[in-house]
This record gives sequence, structure tokens and C-alpha cells, in this order.
Amino acid sequence: MPTTTSSAGTGGQPRFRLATESDWPLIWPFWQHIVAAGDTYCYDQATGYDAGRRMWFGSPPDQVWLVTEGDPASDPAGAESDTVLGTYRVGPNKAGPGSHIGTASYMVSAAARGKGIGRAMVLHCLEQARAAGYRGIQFNAVAASNVYAVKLYLDLGFEVIGTVPGGFRHPEQGFVGLLIMYRQL
Amino acid sequence: MPTTTSSAGTGGQPRFRLATESDWPLIWPFWQHIVAAGDTYCYDQATGYDAGRRMWFGSPPDQVWLVTEGDPASDPAGAESDTVLGTYRVGPNKAGPGSHIGTASYMVSAAARGKGIGRAMVLHCLEQARAAGYRGIQFNAVAASNVYAVKLYLDLGFEVIGTVPGGFRHPEQGFVGLLIMYRQL
Repeated sequence: MPTTTSSAGTGGQPRFRLATESDWPLIWPFWQHIVAAGDTYCYDQATGYDAGRRMWFGSPPDQVWLVTEGDPASDPAGAESDTVLGTYRVGPNKAGPGSHIGTASYMVSAAARGKGIGRAMVLHCLEQARAAGYRGIQFNAVAASNVYAVKLYLDLGFEVIGTVPGGFRHPEQGFVGLLIMYRQL
Repeated sequence: MPTTTSSAGTGGQPRFRLATESDWPLIWPFWQHIVAAGDTYCYDQATGYDAGRRMWFGSPPDQVWLVTEGDPASDPAGAESDTVLGTYRVGPNKAGPGSHIGTASYMVSAAARGKGIGRAMVLHCLEQARAAGYRGIQFNAVAASNVYAVKLYLDLGFEVIGTVPGGFRHPEQGFVGLLIMYRQL
């Protein structure tokens, strides 16, 4: 289901396509920028190119999606050269008796911020997760200092089901809460 | 710090030693039994021997400990043939800005249940985690149906900081809550 609830604000609608590991060069520049900043993700800030690819792509049934901006009318096949605005991953949060709850992570390119790409990705992800049969989506580690993300998730029906006190070490703010958020599907 | 707060109840004190992957044959029989039952752990019930070893041992700084029963006076070196009563793993719950919070998992051999081995392991683990510099220990996935474990953790100072509704699919009880528990160190 292509998300049409949000426009990139620059003429084209965001378009979604499943990524493969061969797309990693398109993702890595902004992925690495976000991880190295250390102010939103609980990933090692020094994660390298190959380790990052393995982490982000995981293994089946995990999926990685790309959001690109383009005009399908002029480029019906979806050119590889389209600007990548963001990426997200979705998969089971746990294995075995916990595999019916999904989890997801989202990254928006710095150049594409403020255009509703994050919202479009969460909405697209909820549809994918519903279609895959997950009963809910859990976010394990949302830094309380990431107020933009927290507000977006609350807007889209997630709730904070728990907080790890001081669970996130923010580079400027020090220890802040790490939120666990959940939304039933 | 050898834990001396709990006896195995059969003459010897439980003894702790760091495990290596070469100890996996001692762990696998009860580990596999617990995982295959699917009523406590969010692991794939069909996890095989090698995949199980990789999961349980993880990578540094993760540690795996063994609890054995034996008499140090008669066997000061700690014989490899000692009966293994249980095992636990401890390591960072998240990477990067979340790596100051630890997590742990415990397994008690069916033959050693009811002897305080679980309690002895949690106490030993808390000391190890404190020594390693973790600021807290988080359990991400405690099945609410696992009343013995929940009671033990509450007794030892953990609290339920959140519940994923229906997050655990119990083989007899169906969907039950999946508890997130936390204890400051």
C-alpha cells in the first residue's frame, strides 16, 4: 500500500519499495550520520559499514523499506537514482512465543526532515505489519529526549507502556528515560 | 563473589564459574528442554545446537556462568564432571547510548529445581553486573505466566516497569502479558 497521506512537499509523493542489501550504499550516508550522533539510537556510534548493513537488514522475515521521492508518471519503473528520503525496518520483536509482536525502526535523511517522511513511514509500516499478521508493534528503546519521535508515535496511536529510568545516555542531556512504546494492530 | 546465601540442599554449596563455548554440551540438554517447552522463553522452540550456543554465549562483554554442585574441599580445582545445576548469561541490554543497562537470562536444570538455584544465580548475577559497572538490569520478556520467576525477581528488588499486552503466546494458557522488569544497581 503506497502511503498517500503525506507529501514530500517538493512536488513528488513519497514512494515505498522493499530494499535489498544492495541498496545499502543509498542508506549508509544518513544511517551512519544518525548513529554516529548518538542522540537517538541505542547502536554503537562507531558501527562500521558492513556491521551496520547486517544490523539493519537482519534476517527474514525482517523487511527493510526505502522511501524515495519521484514522479511515477515520468519514471514508472522507479529509477535507482531517485533521492532516498528515509528507510525503515520491521520484523518480529522476539522469537518463538513472542514472535507475534513486531518491532520497527525508522530513519529520515537529514535533508528530508520536516516533510512528513517519518509519519509516512510509520503509517506504511503499520499496514505492512498488519498484513504480515503481527498483533502489535513494540518499540523497545525510544529516548525520551527524542521529543519529535515520541510525539509522532503518540499521534499515531502508540502509548508508553514503560520507562527504563536513565536508560539512555544522551551526549548533551546525560541520562534520560528510555521509553517502551506499544500499539495494538 | 561465590554466592553463599543459598544451598543446593544436597550437601554442597552451588559453585559458580565462567563458562566457555566448550561447556555447551553440559548446558544444552536442559537448555534445549526449557526452550522446546515454549512456556518461558521467547526463543524459537526448534533452535538447534549450534544456533543455541551462539545465542546463549553472544559476544563480549556478554558472560555466561555455570552453577555446579560440588565440594571444594575434595575437589579444589572444580572438576568438569560436576553436576551442572544451572546457567545464566549477562551482558549489555542495548549498545551505544544504552549499554550502561544490563540484561540477564537464567536457566535451571529440571533436576535442580526447588533448591534455590535460581535465586542464587540472580544474586550472583547482580554482583557481577554491579562489578561490571552496569547501572541497572532490565528483563525484556518475562512471561506473566512464569509466576515462579516473577515472584523471585520481585523478591530480589526488581519491579515491573511495563507489560506488553498478550505479548507471550503460552502453549496452554494462550496469550498472556509479557513483563518488562527492572532493578537499579
